[in-house]
Amino acid sequence: MSDADNQQERPSVEWISGFVDGEGCFHVALNKQPNMSLGWQVLPEFRIVQHKRDEQILHRIRDTLGCGRIVINHGDRLELRVRGMENLTKIVKFFQQHPLQTSKKRNFEIFAKIISLMQEKKHLSEEGMQLIANLASQMNRQTISAYLESSETIRQNALCAKI
Amino acid sequence: MSDADNQQERPSVEWISGFVDGEGCFHVALNKQPNMSLGWQVLPEFRIVQHKRDEQILHRIRDTLGCGRIVINHGDRLELRVRGMENLTKIVKFFQQHPLQTSKKRNFEIFAKIISLMQEKKHLSEEGMQLIANLASQMNRQTISAYLESSETIRQNALCAKI
Repeated sequence: MSDADNQQERPSVEWISGFVDGEGCFHVALNKQPNMSLGWQVLPEFRIVQHKRDEQILHRIRDTLGCGRIVINHGDRLELRVRGMENLTKIVKFFQQHPLQTSKKRNFEIFAKIISLMQEKKHLSEEGMQLIANLASQMNRQTISAYLESSETIRQNALCAKI
Repeated sequence: MSDADNQQERPSVEWISGFVDGEGCFHVALNKQPNMSLGWQVLPEFRIVQHKRDEQILHRIRDTLGCGRIVINHGDRLELRVRGMENLTKIVKFFQQHPLQTSKKRNFEIFAKIISLMQEKKHLSEEGMQLIANLASQMNRQTISAYLESSETIRQNALCAKI
């Protein structure tokens, strides 16, 4: 995109909160990763997907949030993608200051709890990983994650974390 | 919904602008209506569709906008629907004061132009109706409307209105 496009006025923080209530996604993947000590990697991510015709708004949102990369999502769709603990801590703070208003707020709250657990390094213990997997399974109406389904981790006493 | 739900804090105007950039729709239908003098009715409409789990936000947006009805859209989806010139004039004013930021802004501008033409009663003349049909055909990536396709109205010199 041209510098001229990028110099447009930044959207307000409240506008971003409303736009993300419609278009944003807070997601936590648990991926098998044999190289890691527990064999699983927690991958939290915030993203906003738009048709490439609206690429400029993704740049402007990124500039306001102060983090994220714009990458191809699929076909003619782009996404603003935020990963990494430092960046996601910024994202959590932003939406705590400028709260979502729809039922997506509940997803965000679970997401924020997982980020907080990861800041405390809980994902490095099996107990913490179980807690994170239980939390993640409550997000985005997804079914229970592969982690919870894996034979090693299904436990009779699996706790459904209170949040 | 309960009174308690409805008494939640109203979303800010900027939040609504962002949410509508994601979820709102400005639409102008041209419907065959033999009872009307030109045989066609212009039906402009603003709507926001949400799953019924987010019914409360539709009520809160309606309360802030000061117009609209919440009706069933399809299955478990509800919509906040605004029709009628007085209400739509309010909607146009709202989004002129709190501008959209994505490419949806162009749809809104065409919509606002059509509302303005209707305020001037242009839709009651064949020439005005042609202009409105040309404008409406540029919205929402829709194909040319039935009005423009009808044999009586296709003209060699049909103008693509500048907006």
